[in-house]
Amino acid sequence: MSAVVTEAPETTTQPGLREGAFGNATSLSCRECGHLVALGPFYACPECFGPLEITYEFPQVTREEIEAGPRNIWRYKALLPVPTDIETSPNTEPGFTRLLEAKNLAAELGIAKLWVKDDSTNPTNSFKDRVVACALSAARELGATTFACPSTGNLANAVAAAGARAGIKTVVFIPSNLETPKQVNSAIFTENLVAVDGNYDDVNKLASEIAGEEEGWAFVNVNVRPYYAEGSKTLGYEIAEQLGWRLPDQVVIPVASGSQLTKVDKAFQELIKLGLVEDKAYRIFGAQATGCGPVATAYKAGTDAIRPVKPDTIAKSLAIGNPADGIYVLDIARRTGGSVEEVTDDEIREGIVLLARTEGIFTETAGGTTTAVTKKLVETGQLDPSLETVIINTGHGLKTLDSISGQVGPAATIAPSYDAFKATGL
Amino acid sequence: MSAVVTEAPETTTQPGLREGAFGNATSLSCRECGHLVALGPFYACPECFGPLEITYEFPQVTREEIEAGPRNIWRYKALLPVPTDIETSPNTEPGFTRLLEAKNLAAELGIAKLWVKDDSTNPTNSFKDRVVACALSAARELGATTFACPSTGNLANAVAAAGARAGIKTVVFIPSNLETPKQVNSAIFTENLVAVDGNYDDVNKLASEIAGEEEGWAFVNVNVRPYYAEGSKTLGYEIAEQLGWRLPDQVVIPVASGSQLTKVDKAFQELIKLGLVEDKAYRIFGAQATGCGPVATAYKAGTDAIRPVKPDTIAKSLAIGNPADGIYVLDIARRTGGSVEEVTDDEIREGIVLLARTEGIFTETAGGTTTAVTKKLVETGQLDPSLETVIINTGHGLKTLDSISGQVGPAATIAPSYDAFKATGL
Repeated sequence: MSAVVTEAPETTTQPGLREGAFGNATSLSCRECGHLVALGPFYACPECFGPLEITYEFPQVTREEIEAGPRNIWRYKALLPVPTDIETSPNTEPGFTRLLEAKNLAAELGIAKLWVKDDSTNPTNSFKDRVVACALSAARELGATTFACPSTGNLANAVAAAGARAGIKTVVFIPSNLETPKQVNSAIFTENLVAVDGNYDDVNKLASEIAGEEEGWAFVNVNVRPYYAEGSKTLGYEIAEQLGWRLPDQVVIPVASGSQLTKVDKAFQELIKLGLVEDKAYRIFGAQATGCGPVATAYKAGTDAIRPVKPDTIAKSLAIGNPADGIYVLDIARRTGGSVEEVTDDEIREGIVLLARTEGIFTETAGGTTTAVTKKLVETGQLDPSLETVIINTGHGLKTLDSISGQVGPAATIAPSYDAFKATGL
Repeated sequence: MSAVVTEAPETTTQPGLREGAFGNATSLSCRECGHLVALGPFYACPECFGPLEITYEFPQVTREEIEAGPRNIWRYKALLPVPTDIETSPNTEPGFTRLLEAKNLAAELGIAKLWVKDDSTNPTNSFKDRVVACALSAARELGATTFACPSTGNLANAVAAAGARAGIKTVVFIPSNLETPKQVNSAIFTENLVAVDGNYDDVNKLASEIAGEEEGWAFVNVNVRPYYAEGSKTLGYEIAEQLGWRLPDQVVIPVASGSQLTKVDKAFQELIKLGLVEDKAYRIFGAQATGCGPVATAYKAGTDAIRPVKPDTIAKSLAIGNPADGIYVLDIARRTGGSVEEVTDDEIREGIVLLARTEGIFTETAGGTTTAVTKKLVETGQLDPSLETVIINTGHGLKTLDSISGQVGPAATIAPSYDAFKATGL
């Protein structure tokens, strides 16, 4: 595997790959200019430097074939850039997480029919297990010898765990000032955790430099990013399958880079084209934190110009000040009749408690953002409460405990006696 | 619902229950003397004070019927004390967690074929979601108005979350010196968290007192315990179904009260009797911590007399000094050709790291105990490494982070430069 190559070769075959290494994927194509590039460790268009994404020639795929597959994302392997024998390669087997009908939250928000797609029950408790599993497959097929990422949170956990299970050398780069619990949650899986004196931007820059200099390193969110990003499509596939092979009317999705939102839309479009669901209108809404809401700001201003911001929010996993896919998020929100909304840190905390108290789901700050944004969308008339709605919970509250500590606690502290209990009035 | 009734009425019907409230369950029977008691909020035999458990008259149940059920424990509803419409009642939909083939760990331990049943991916990240779901159903059918438990950890989380989703008043009692993160992980779900100045025994005693005095309180592990405990059978059912409807040769299960181990055995026996799996010999092994190993001690001494201990171990979720089902654990281990083994706190920590580094699973201290005991069982020749083995991971390491902090961490802390990275040798 070569290192970072932004100048992809303009061929349609890539030497050294085994037959079917990427399943039904046929090439990489530039999202901006449509230029085609051979499947390989490339992520930027050699013509215009636009982002590359995977294109496919799908065979006929049936619901029955999918339903007969494993209870994880590989049931959709025909729609992913992975080989047909992907289930036999060691991976964390993520996905096919529960889609819970949220009647209590629906009543609270005044929504007729509401579902929570709960990715906090993935192997390392976030949706990142999906994308990392696809990146791992690409790394393997491209002959990478080291699996790596720069990260501060969910991604680090997912990469470290997947790398351990795959038995591939795995290196995770984190800012050295990261809180100890977050360090432990990656260090538990890998002996190669590298703390870098600097902020996340510094760590990211170092990762790109290493990717450019070293042979055989697959950085999941750098040089195998096109494969990695496709993993988020499985969220869309699962929502449709779990609803009984139909699309919801409305979906609310958190926006960090914006990739997940664009991939759920891509998944819905693919399902329609393949005849796996009926064609219908659906609206996609993006959720951001006010402390890092460049896409929401652009949406409200009615512009395509997304102005980068310096993040300042408790929703660390959404804190991308210059979101790579923000422009596509705006396009999808506008095209589908959705919108992009933002909420304050206090609203995020309230969203976390609201989801926990109504549905027994302890979400991370990103999920608190999505819940709070959903509430705001109803209150401001942007989301139609009479339509069936799905919100995506991307991760687990145990990972962002500090954001909520002090918000909740014991109702009373009592002596160990029945009289003391009676005095509580409970 | 009446309060704690140790003297159960000696009738075969219980007034006020709807038809089919407990599915195919027919009565409670004493595990010691076999005395039959009507289904109700009873847990102790009126004849001999032995523990009551559920008896059934099972209809013909087929694999196909089970496979057509939901992807959670309710696929086995015909084998549980729950009504046939249980899926329609709000619950956290636990179970059907992944059974991962653990090739790396197998190689490390020298076992030919090894699987991990991973209950850390349950809704609140432990097997307790299974038993609490069954307790919730019983509470509902018995007309309870308050759902409650005394607990310090996983059980508190599971009860608080299930109660929130069910929309039933939920009260959770904890020792007031419990660490803040553990308090938050329950308080997030309920406004009725009560901190009690005392140790777990004090909290437990208070709970029993309240159960005895108050009307309509269902304490999951007190007055609805027989229903609650049956939930652990689903671990056994799932292992068999996920292996392709067959039993493993060996299973290693952590022992706290011992209930889970006895219920996995019960599940296997039921599957054999129902013709859902082929009859075969299997061995069941119990795993304890040296700091709380009364059953292991009795096993090694060749006695049935389990001498209570004062727990002193990092495996808090296994720290039951006087295990109620210990005697049955001894019986099953001896009858099946298994054993009960113990490991030190240092070995438990090593077990946690071993499972994470080989299989990408971050387990709590109980899972570290099971992993370390499995290693010891192989090394001491008690477990046959040529036979197919399943180990049960009961919970998530994020809940016991403090036990492992300081054990793992960054390999290096570097300046944000390529040269600094190169100097690490990675």
